Amino acid sequence: MNGYIHAGRIAALRSLMSDKGWDAVIVCGSDPHASEYPAPRFKQVEWLTGFTGEAGDVVITMDHAGLWTDSRYFIQANNQLRGTGVELHKTRMPDSVLIPQWLSGRARIVAVDGLCMSSGFIAQVRSSLGEGGLVVDVPDMLDVLWQDRPLLPVSPITTMDVDSFGGTQRVEKIAWLRKWMMVEGASALLLTSLDEIAWMLNVRGNDIEYNPLVISYLLVTQDYVKWFVTKPVDGDYDPDTVDSFSELELDGVTICEYESLMQGLEILADENSDTVIFADPSSLNYHVASFLETLFANIISGISPVILEKAIKTESEISAQRQTYIDDGVAMETFLYWLENEVNSGREVSEWDASEKLTSLRADVPGYRGNSFENISAYGANAALPHYCTPREGSAIISPKGLYLVDSGGQYLTGTTDITRTVPMGPCSELEKEDYTLVLKGMIALSMARFPRGTAGCQIDVLARNPLWKAKRNFGHGTGHGIGFWLCVHEGPQDIRQNFNSQPLLPGMITSNEPGLYREGMHGIRHENVILCRESGSNEFGSWLEFETLTCCHIDTAAIIPGLLSDEETEWLNAYNESVYRRLSLHLPSETAAWLRRKTLPLGGEI
Amino acid sequence: MNGYIHAGRIAALRSLMSDKGWDAVIVCGSDPHASEYPAPRFKQVEWLTGFTGEAGDVVITMDHAGLWTDSRYFIQANNQLRGTGVELHKTRMPDSVLIPQWLSGRARIVAVDGLCMSSGFIAQVRSSLGEGGLVVDVPDMLDVLWQDRPLLPVSPITTMDVDSFGGTQRVEKIAWLRKWMMVEGASALLLTSLDEIAWMLNVRGNDIEYNPLVISYLLVTQDYVKWFVTKPVDGDYDPDTVDSFSELELDGVTICEYESLMQGLEILADENSDTVIFADPSSLNYHVASFLETLFANIISGISPVILEKAIKTESEISAQRQTYIDDGVAMETFLYWLENEVNSGREVSEWDASEKLTSLRADVPGYRGNSFENISAYGANAALPHYCTPREGSAIISPKGLYLVDSGGQYLTGTTDITRTVPMGPCSELEKEDYTLVLKGMIALSMARFPRGTAGCQIDVLARNPLWKAKRNFGHGTGHGIGFWLCVHEGPQDIRQNFNSQPLLPGMITSNEPGLYREGMHGIRHENVILCRESGSNEFGSWLEFETLTCCHIDTAAIIPGLLSDEETEWLNAYNESVYRRLSLHLPSETAAWLRRKTLPLGGEI
Repeated sequence: MNGYIHAGRIAALRSLMSDKGWDAVIVCGSDPHASEYPAPRFKQVEWLTGFTGEAGDVVITMDHAGLWTDSRYFIQANNQLRGTGVELHKTRMPDSVLIPQWLSGRARIVAVDGLCMSSGFIAQVRSSLGEGGLVVDVPDMLDVLWQDRPLLPVSPITTMDVDSFGGTQRVEKIAWLRKWMMVEGASALLLTSLDEIAWMLNVRGNDIEYNPLVISYLLVTQDYVKWFVTKPVDGDYDPDTVDSFSELELDGVTICEYESLMQGLEILADENSDTVIFADPSSLNYHVASFLETLFANIISGISPVILEKAIKTESEISAQRQTYIDDGVAMETFLYWLENEVNSGREVSEWDASEKLTSLRADVPGYRGNSFENISAYGANAALPHYCTPREGSAIISPKGLYLVDSGGQYLTGTTDITRTVPMGPCSELEKEDYTLVLKGMIALSMARFPRGTAGCQIDVLARNPLWKAKRNFGHGTGHGIGFWLCVHEGPQDIRQNFNSQPLLPGMITSNEPGLYREGMHGIRHENVILCRESGSNEFGSWLEFETLTCCHIDTAAIIPGLLSDEETEWLNAYNESVYRRLSLHLPSETAAWLRRKTLPLGGEI
Repeated sequence: MNGYIHAGRIAALRSLMSDKGWDAVIVCGSDPHASEYPAPRFKQVEWLTGFTGEAGDVVITMDHAGLWTDSRYFIQANNQLRGTGVELHKTRMPDSVLIPQWLSGRARIVAVDGLCMSSGFIAQVRSSLGEGGLVVDVPDMLDVLWQDRPLLPVSPITTMDVDSFGGTQRVEKIAWLRKWMMVEGASALLLTSLDEIAWMLNVRGNDIEYNPLVISYLLVTQDYVKWFVTKPVDGDYDPDTVDSFSELELDGVTICEYESLMQGLEILADENSDTVIFADPSSLNYHVASFLETLFANIISGISPVILEKAIKTESEISAQRQTYIDDGVAMETFLYWLENEVNSGREVSEWDASEKLTSLRADVPGYRGNSFENISAYGANAALPHYCTPREGSAIISPKGLYLVDSGGQYLTGTTDITRTVPMGPCSELEKEDYTLVLKGMIALSMARFPRGTAGCQIDVLARNPLWKAKRNFGHGTGHGIGFWLCVHEGPQDIRQNFNSQPLLPGMITSNEPGLYREGMHGIRHENVILCRESGSNEFGSWLEFETLTCCHIDTAAIIPGLLSDEETEWLNAYNESVYRRLSLHLPSETAAWLRRKTLPLGGEI
């Protein structure tokens, strides 16, 4: 799409601004639930400017149009904004001027689509505007300009069979939440984060790509549970979905229209003028937050208890995940065997072909419900971009030399997976091998970590970086993120990264372990396993925790410089590869199993 | 002293309370400058209750007397409070009720000595008291009861010869501070922390044991520098001190009486009603803070810039410290040689004897100005108490077996030292050796660390703990604290510990590296070197920092289990011990040098 179209849209918006008397408009790329990936309806920044990055906010004034984004997207923004008249404002730089600050002195009346912005952000804007400043909330402001704006997605929903596949019954979860509310003194609780709602109700949908979520709000009191969600209309009759809604109703969940949230809140306020309502500002949008303030005198703003409860997987979820990683490992090993054969036989395999092949193999796994994010299939220098987006047309051909990186995952009835393997396709340079080995040392160090209860991810992150740091190398992303159970592949509250996050790692939490190294124009390496935090006994020094690696897929030893591994690291690696072989071989065709046997022979030894 | 005396003092205080109409009195163990070690005059908690621990606050009501302290002092408090009627309240426990909370509902009018409490604490107390609650500030409240209360110490002062011994001229420091004030928009700055004042003025005193400080306040404006300090009276004529005061006056410092601070502030307020005054609440007492609020409309509360500037040692301070650690190492090695000979010859050496011997050897070092803290000289199970206080009478006899721990340091014209060595006196148990080796692995890992600029101590602390954690062992104290230059042996803003502290480690900072392990009733181990943060080059991955070990004293290899050390660790240890020998041997008598040669032979190899 060329820049003129976006320039025209911005001009149209300026006409609207002029009619309304607005000095500035802020457009954010978020949805009303602060989701990581918004549905197409909420890609307002893309519609207005053409910028497709995952993080970016826009400000339009009469004489300026600016996009604020961080270093991950500088190159992309410069390309996509060409001809639009939109200027790039760099964030997370030492001298960054952020939107609230930038607006100060430049605007008095600022219009926003309050549905797609957080209260916290608007508070900053308002305070920057100073006396006489005004923020006007115009929900769906762009509707009058964006004539073919997509509707809210309405996809079939599925309820989870927790008895067969792991988890806790929704009635138990609701009882738990009501108890929590009593302790906290909240008579009502509004859940706004989509993955929290999906978890609470044991329901999954398909409203957002890669994330099995249903766009909705959930209002819980001691007397009722109201789910504000759009049902498929009669014409879209889907017997499963209808059954699912009935199942929810049998468990005491009242189904209300998504658009009727405000009414639902008014009813609540009418029922009881003393209502104390709890909401989590991290996923509460400004529009709903303002409405709450007009209705209720007592609002508790806090971290939703669902976030932590969801992160601590139950025994049955853990068992299901263990099996899921074996099934996912079968797809991965089948893929890696195929890839090696194709490339070694001289057949032309592009990054895109490889990605498609992997997806098709995952699709054969029982319970597969889609990928958990967009495959990253990157060969050679392309892998140096940690968020490389494999193009459908003209992607690189994988040659029998150097490193190929594949970061992918699946959504299954029985859990969510995420794995990265960096694969030596043939001869590698010394630097490739060194980087490959140092990153692996970091991944192993974190895998072997033991730590006292109370330890947070940022307190052990350095274990994954230390081997790289010693060699003056580093990577610019986090080492680990929480992973949901047939839910979002990125979830909190825990993580493993440098940023201070006081949430301790707790038994039952599932987190990725993915150090990397990226050399522009040369190669990129990432080794990613998924690890489960579990108990490791108690003694006079405390209560101990450790990790169990869930991911089941061999780590190629061909690119390792054995002398760089300590005996302990070599031992870990050999034991891991051996256990992958033992767990997977029976599920693989004999030819693939024989190949895997060779691939998992111990480093520096005989079997 | 028996409990009756303290019970009597508490009864006397209650009479006073009853006369004055106070429901409660809070007594803190702090001084007006929030010093780590207060002068005897400010040991009010000890006078009232007999408790001598370094951390403890007291509340007296008509029907309750309580001491609030943390786990380090539970045993000591139970012993010392016997018969006083004072009950122990445990802090830093999951269910701790702290003083403000405890007072809520139990008192309406609370009297405090505002000189010895922080504003922040009083604000908490006041908000706990609720409506109708009142905090009455009675400076030196206990004076009427404590008839032989020590006066403020007035010791001779010394000015530093920075040209010879390192540092920056005070006129340059004052110019730097004035520039900082201009940038921050502060027209005046009140320094209240004693080590910050000593650093600013290049002056040292002896008012507080182990800390070369002068009890005083410093008021800096663009026009003058007023030092509020008590000069020795005529009868105590000390020509050096008089010269020192003259030197300060020549550099533009006006000497004012310590007690005239309030007048000095009033003059400032009279001079300019628009004064914007900066003060750091972390060392500002409630009494002075309240006075500032009555005088000035504009007070900037912030972290004093002196803290960071003081922590980043200059090139000349670093050179001086390097030499100081060699001189201190000579004393240490002489001591260790003496100790081994004495004990092996069957002579009776007590922990106290050893401590005295070490102090006398340090006293021989040129520029020695006292110890930097009370020696910890602990044999066997005594070393399991990290803050063991060696008794003058009846301390343990050191036998030719097991482990002896000595933690000590000196104050010198050319810097401050701090070192711990754990010494195998003869045969050690397997567990002693294992613990000794694991702690050493942690110390080595931190010594070898490299990290990108911006890294804080809490982000690398785990390197020192990981070898212990893997074996399910841990220690309950921080790994490292900042160290002053002929100043306090504990200083900020940086540290290396689990607690989140966002202050990055910066080139020029000097910090201890002291992991340990303590087994009650068995043994205690701590290996402590002092490390300097320095540049380690830049590349495409960032700007790198590393540590240089300043401490120069061998680490005994006799208690090491060589198989537990990696090749890299063994290499580090051998290189360190070799460099100790090379740096020290020429300064030691030939017999000691020959002994040190044997002690520093490489582990698992020939020289």
